[in-house]
Amino acid sequence: MSGVLDCIESPADVRRLSPSELSTLCDEIRGHLIKAVTKTGGHLGPNLGFVEATVALHHVFDFPTDKLVFDVSHQCYTHKMLTGRKRAFVDPAYYNEFTGFTNPDESEYDLFRAGHTSQAVSLACGLAKSRDLLGQEHNVIAVLGDGSLSGGEAFEGLDNAAVVGSNIIVVFNDNEMSIAPNAGGVYQNLAELRRTHGTCKNNFFRTLGLDYQYVEDGNNVNALVDAFAQVRNIDHPVVVHIHTKKGKGLDWAENNPEKAHSIPPASKSVSGPTYQQLTRDYLLQKLQEDPSVVVVNAGAPSGVGLTPEFRQACGTQFVDTGITEQHAVAFSAGLARGGAKPVFMVMATFAQRAFDQFVQELGLNCSPATVLVFGAGFYDIDATHAGTMDIVMTSNVPGITCLAPATREEYLAMIDWSIEQTERPVVIRVPEKVLLGSAEAFEPKRPCGWHVNRRGSKTAFLSLGSSLELAQEAADLLEQQSGVRASIVEALSYSSFDEPLLDSLLEDHSLVITLEAGILCGGFGEKVARYYGATPMRVLCYGGKKEFLDRVPTEDFFRIYHFTAEDIVRDIQSLSL
Amino acid sequence: MSGVLDCIESPADVRRLSPSELSTLCDEIRGHLIKAVTKTGGHLGPNLGFVEATVALHHVFDFPTDKLVFDVSHQCYTHKMLTGRKRAFVDPAYYNEFTGFTNPDESEYDLFRAGHTSQAVSLACGLAKSRDLLGQEHNVIAVLGDGSLSGGEAFEGLDNAAVVGSNIIVVFNDNEMSIAPNAGGVYQNLAELRRTHGTCKNNFFRTLGLDYQYVEDGNNVNALVDAFAQVRNIDHPVVVHIHTKKGKGLDWAENNPEKAHSIPPASKSVSGPTYQQLTRDYLLQKLQEDPSVVVVNAGAPSGVGLTPEFRQACGTQFVDTGITEQHAVAFSAGLARGGAKPVFMVMATFAQRAFDQFVQELGLNCSPATVLVFGAGFYDIDATHAGTMDIVMTSNVPGITCLAPATREEYLAMIDWSIEQTERPVVIRVPEKVLLGSAEAFEPKRPCGWHVNRRGSKTAFLSLGSSLELAQEAADLLEQQSGVRASIVEALSYSSFDEPLLDSLLEDHSLVITLEAGILCGGFGEKVARYYGATPMRVLCYGGKKEFLDRVPTEDFFRIYHFTAEDIVRDIQSLSL
Repeated sequence: MSGVLDCIESPADVRRLSPSELSTLCDEIRGHLIKAVTKTGGHLGPNLGFVEATVALHHVFDFPTDKLVFDVSHQCYTHKMLTGRKRAFVDPAYYNEFTGFTNPDESEYDLFRAGHTSQAVSLACGLAKSRDLLGQEHNVIAVLGDGSLSGGEAFEGLDNAAVVGSNIIVVFNDNEMSIAPNAGGVYQNLAELRRTHGTCKNNFFRTLGLDYQYVEDGNNVNALVDAFAQVRNIDHPVVVHIHTKKGKGLDWAENNPEKAHSIPPASKSVSGPTYQQLTRDYLLQKLQEDPSVVVVNAGAPSGVGLTPEFRQACGTQFVDTGITEQHAVAFSAGLARGGAKPVFMVMATFAQRAFDQFVQELGLNCSPATVLVFGAGFYDIDATHAGTMDIVMTSNVPGITCLAPATREEYLAMIDWSIEQTERPVVIRVPEKVLLGSAEAFEPKRPCGWHVNRRGSKTAFLSLGSSLELAQEAADLLEQQSGVRASIVEALSYSSFDEPLLDSLLEDHSLVITLEAGILCGGFGEKVARYYGATPMRVLCYGGKKEFLDRVPTEDFFRIYHFTAEDIVRDIQSLSL
Repeated sequence: MSGVLDCIESPADVRRLSPSELSTLCDEIRGHLIKAVTKTGGHLGPNLGFVEATVALHHVFDFPTDKLVFDVSHQCYTHKMLTGRKRAFVDPAYYNEFTGFTNPDESEYDLFRAGHTSQAVSLACGLAKSRDLLGQEHNVIAVLGDGSLSGGEAFEGLDNAAVVGSNIIVVFNDNEMSIAPNAGGVYQNLAELRRTHGTCKNNFFRTLGLDYQYVEDGNNVNALVDAFAQVRNIDHPVVVHIHTKKGKGLDWAENNPEKAHSIPPASKSVSGPTYQQLTRDYLLQKLQEDPSVVVVNAGAPSGVGLTPEFRQACGTQFVDTGITEQHAVAFSAGLARGGAKPVFMVMATFAQRAFDQFVQELGLNCSPATVLVFGAGFYDIDATHAGTMDIVMTSNVPGITCLAPATREEYLAMIDWSIEQTERPVVIRVPEKVLLGSAEAFEPKRPCGWHVNRRGSKTAFLSLGSSLELAQEAADLLEQQSGVRASIVEALSYSSFDEPLLDSLLEDHSLVITLEAGILCGGFGEKVARYYGATPMRVLCYGGKKEFLDRVPTEDFFRIYHFTAEDIVRDIQSLSL
C-alpha cells in the first residue's frame, strides 16, 4: 500500500494536499473504513457518509488551534485517522485500539467525550464565548447531524449560537436519516432546502437568526473545501448545510441505512431468545387485542429491538418521536392522561435526558405510563453509553413504581400488569439474560412486594432483578463452604421496601447481602442499609462503584466489584459478626 | 358587586356571553387579579397578560370535553376563576385557597400539574394521539408561552406536533418577554412576525411544518374569539400566535415586566444579608479581577438573585441563555474547556432538566465549571417547584464534586476555590439562612474533607451543609438530657466520604446521626449507612421522605420528618443500643 493516507501523520499533512490528492485520500479512507468496521463493528453508515466532510475540515481549518466539536461523535472515525490514530483502522492488529467516540484522553484534537446527541452547538457556544472573553481568534466548528437536530438541546444551542454574535461554524450533516428514518416536522423543511439547493424562503436555520449556506454534494470533498474556505474566519454564526449519503460507497450500507448505522462485530453471534424478541412478541399480540396500547420510542429503535418489521406491524400504534427523550416521556404522560396505554421503550443511557420529565410528567402527575428500560446494568461499552444511572434516576423519584424482573415469566407478568393499571407510572428494568422461572413471584395485588425464594437463616441475599442468579450461586457456595443455608429474597421492586419482609429477617438473620447491577451510590442497597441502620443487622452492598467504566470487559468489573459468588462468600467469611 | 363574573359558575356560562359581556368579564377579572395578587403574591404579569386569551378559549371551546394544557401553568389564574374557583381571587377570605398552577386534584378542567416550562405541546401531542387511537373527536389546545419557547422540549413538541397530523391547536402567547427579557435567535423571528403581522416569508413555526395564524391584539377578547373560532375543529396542527402585553392593565407591571413576573406577598419582608446578595458582591469583584470569569443563567435570573442591575454590571461576563438548562450546562462545559471560568447559577428544581448534561458534559468530561444550586432543600412551595432532588442528581454522578457549606465563610471560600481550580466540575449547594463562621473548616487542599466541629464520644452528628445548626442544637440538648457529649461533624462535601474520619468514629462511637435538607432516598445519609453497613455502628438518617410536598409550611414537615432537636434526641433515647 502506498497512497496518500500513508503520508498523513497529522492534520498539517492534510492541509498541504492538492484537490486530486484530497479525493484519493477520501477513497483510501473509505476503503479502510469498510474493511475495518465490517470486521470490528461500529458506526458504519455515519462514518462512510462523513469521510469527505472530515477531510475537507482538516484541509481548510487549522486544528487544534481551531476547535472542532462533534455531536454524537460516533462519526469521528475519519477524524481519528487524520489525527494520529490511523493504525486503528488500517492495521488489524490495532483494530479496537481506540474508542468509537471522540476522547480527549486519546488526542488533543478531541475536545470532548460525546456519545449522546445534540450537544455540539452548545459546547461550541461555550468555546466561542470563552475565545471571545480571552481575546483569542480561532474558528469554532460544531458538527451537528445524523438525526440529532430533533433533540431539543440542538435547538437550544442553535438558538443561542445566533446571539453569541461571533465566529461559530455549524456543519449540519444532513444524510436524510437519523438512526432510523427521521421523524419530525423540521425534516420537511430540510427536504425543501435540499430540493431548492438551499434557496427556499422558509428556512429553519434563518428563522433562528443564523446565516446559512448549502452544499448539495456533501460527499464531494472539493466542493466542501470551497464551502468551508468561504466561511473560515467568518465573524458571525453560520450553518453550512451539507447533503451527504449515509453508508456512502458500500452498496449494502447505502441500501440499508438503518441496519448499517451501527453494526456488531463480525465475530459476534446471538443465540437463544432475547428480551427484545420477547417484548416484540408480547406487544404485538397486546396491540392487536387493544387499540389503545401504543409503543413509543425516541429515535433509537434498534437499541431496544424495535425492528422495521415490528414497527410496520404496529401501524399507528407505534410512534417514533425522533431523538427527543424529553418529549417522548411527556408525550407518554399525555397519552396516559388521554386514556391510551403507552409503552415507552428506551435505553438506560438515553433515559438520562428525561430526568425532569420522569419527576414532573410521570411522578408528580401519577401518569400511568409503562417505561421499559433496556441496557441497564454493567456492559462492556463506551463510557458515554453506560447504563448504570437508571436506578438513581428512577427509584428516587416520588410516585414512580420501579420493577426489576429476574425471569421471563416475571417480566411478562409485570408488563401486562403495568399496561392495564391506571394509577401510576411504572418503570421496568429489563434484564439482559433470559432466565426462565414462574410468574408467581410477582403478585399483581401487591406489585411492590418482594418474594422469598428460599427461607434460610443467619444470612439473607437480597437480589435486585437480574442479580438473582448470582444470589443463588453465592448462597449455594456459602452453604457448601460454611454450612449456612442462607435466605434468598428477590427484590422485585426497587422504588420501595417490602417492610414486613425486611422486618421478619431481623428475627433470625444477622447479615443481609444486597446485589444490584448498577452503581451503589443512590441505588438500591443503600436504601436497605439505611432501613436497617438503627438495628443490629449488618448489610453488605454489592454493585458498581461511582465511576465511568470505559469498555471494561464485564468479567473484569465483576471481579473489581466483587460481583462473583467466590468474592462474596469470601467477604462474608472475613466479617467478624 | 353585580357584574358578569358573578354569573360565571362554570365555562358553560362563558360560552353564552355576548361580545360586550366578554369584554366586561375581562375587565372584572383583571380588577380582581390586581387586587388579589398584589396582596397574596404570585405570577402577576403573566396572568394580567393572559386574561383575554383565557376568556376567549373558554368562550369558543367546550372544556373539559376539549382539552386544555398549560405550559408552565403559572398563567392559569383566569382559567381557575372561570372553572369554579373564582372565590380564591374575589374574596380575601379564600385567597390562597388554591395553588398557583394547574392541578387535577382541584378541578377536572386541569389536566396536569405543570410548573416547569416548555412541555405543553408534548403533553398535547399525547392527548391528541390518544384521542385519535380511541376514536374521539375533541380539540386539544396547548398554551405555550411566556418565554418557554426557548426550551428544547418546546421545540421537540412542536416538531412532533407537526407530524401527529390531526387536531392540535397551539396558542403561542408572545408577550415579548420570558421571566427576564427573551434571549435567543428565534425571538428575532418573532419580532419580524409581529412587525409583519405574521406575514413574513421566513416563519419559525412554518419551517416545522405547522400551520400558522397571527393575532396582533392578543388582549382583545373578541379578536381572539374570532381567531379561535376559525381553528376550532381544525383537522391538522396549527399555531395561533397571539401578541399580548405582560402586566396588561397595571401601569407598574407593564413598565416593570421582570419584577412583576412573580411578586412576593405584600406582607413578606426580607431582612439581613442573603446568599443572593453575598454571591452578587463576591462575583462582581471577581469578574472585575478576572475577565475569564463568566456568570451563566438559564432564563430565571430572579430566583438566584441576578438582578437587572447586577447583570448590567457584569457586561459581557454575564450570559442569560434563556430557558435552556440543558444548553446552559453544556455551554458551561464548553466555556470551561475553552479556558474560561463559568459560574452557572440555577434553582435546584430547574437543574433537573439537565441531569444528562451533569452526567456527560460535566462529570464524564471533568469540566471545571462551578454550579451554584439555589433553592435546594425544604421550602413551603408548590410541589412543581420542590428543590429536594438535587442531592440525588448531583452526588451520585461520577466525577462531580459536591460541596455543602454551612456558613458564609465556607461558602465564599468554596466558590473561590472552585472557580480557580481546573480539574473538575463543582456543585455548591447554597444554603438559605446565612450563618456566620470561619472559613477554616473548608480546606482547599482537601476540598472533600469533612470538619470535626466538636469531638465527643458515643454519638456523632454528621450534618450536611445548612443542617449544622440543627446538629448543634440536638447535640446540646442531648448533652443536657443525657450527659452524652456528642461529636459534631460538618460534612462539607457530599459526593464522597471522608473515610479516615468515618473510620476514626468507629473507635469510640456507636451511633451516627446524619442530617440533610433533602430527600433521604438516593441522598447523603444512605451512603453513610452503607459505609457502616458491615460494622457495629448504628446509623440514623434524618431528611425528607420520598414524596412531593405541596405548599406544606416548613415547620410542619420538619415535625413530620423529626427534623427537630427534640425529636432527634427522643429518637436516640428510644434506641436500645
